Amino acid sequence: MTNMKKNFPLDKAYRLLNHGPVVLISSTLDGKNNIMPIAWQSPVDLDPTRLALIIGDHSHTFKVVGKTKELVVNLPTVELVDKVFSCGKCHGHEVDKFRKFNLTPEKASKVKAPLIGECVANLECKVVDDKMMDTHNIFIVEVVAAWVEEGAYDEFLRVDKPNVKTLHHLGADVFTVPAEIIRAKKINV
Amino acid sequence: MTNMKKNFPLDKAYRLLNHGPVVLISSTLDGKNNIMPIAWQSPVDLDPTRLALIIGDHSHTFKVVGKTKELVVNLPTVELVDKVFSCGKCHGHEVDKFRKFNLTPEKASKVKAPLIGECVANLECKVVDDKMMDTHNIFIVEVVAAWVEEGAYDEFLRVDKPNVKTLHHLGADVFTVPAEIIRAKKINV
Repeated sequence: MTNMKKNFPLDKAYRLLNHGPVVLISSTLDGKNNIMPIAWQSPVDLDPTRLALIIGDHSHTFKVVGKTKELVVNLPTVELVDKVFSCGKCHGHEVDKFRKFNLTPEKASKVKAPLIGECVANLECKVVDDKMMDTHNIFIVEVVAAWVEEGAYDEFLRVDKPNVKTLHHLGADVFTVPAEIIRAKKINV
Repeated sequence: MTNMKKNFPLDKAYRLLNHGPVVLISSTLDGKNNIMPIAWQSPVDLDPTRLALIIGDHSHTFKVVGKTKELVVNLPTVELVDKVFSCGKCHGHEVDKFRKFNLTPEKASKVKAPLIGECVANLECKVVDDKMMDTHNIFIVEVVAAWVEEGAYDEFLRVDKPNVKTLHHLGADVFTVPAEIIRAKKINV
């Protein structure tokens, strides 16, 4: 089931990824949609948010994004863990992963790649620098539109609420999810 | 207090960072040590582990690593949260953060930068590609030696044990830590 989404400010979009969650990359070429889970991502800039996405060069997504220069970064939460894992275990040139895993492609506003409806947030992105694509599999992308589920986040983007628990990949089939929120204190010496 | 460390295999070192924790970058130049917390990091390759580290270009660490081409990536756990946060609130050209926050510089094996003794793991790194340093603040580093506390991790690098709970930065003074471990199931359709 997919929920209502609302626009999210572009200069805050990096905070959705700042704590290191797994994301699903959706892309499209020649009418064929694809999905790939990646754990290797990081913001690299704010306002607008730019991200470094590391996309394995044997993947179908690497080929598609290399050509189309656009994609969507989708943020899955814990109830999608089996689908996230399974999306990494089959190949986009062989199967339609939206159909196979019963995920909903939704129309994006600024890119052709589809949003994944079941994800709590979706960042529409365009590749702005592909010079490290061939050396380190790094695509630098800029977030050009951002969507989050109505009511999913408060001002601190608290990820300890049950409905927004993101997935963090430890390796193989092992993931962890965020527990409580901790507020740090500044030490004055 | 610092604990006994043992060598960790270089081809598994990426797994210490795969779930997106905050790390402390230690570096040294002209006999002056420095520490900087960063949330923006990702593995980019395995065997040996290579990492993309995004280091803000106004920082002292950016200048030092730009010159020395080496650093240590230290993995702090939750009991260090106030020190991690506070290390980001003062400047390395003004204060010795090891002394200010009572952290222990320990001798590394392959770089001049010191290990932070109180961290659960330490990855000695050399910069192997700085071409994106000026465009996106990205340093590509290779892990040349890795250390973890004796007994800290089992084969799955479980981060739900109390003594190895890593920090994940949500923004400002707000952090989260890993909760339980989840094993994903492959969906066969």
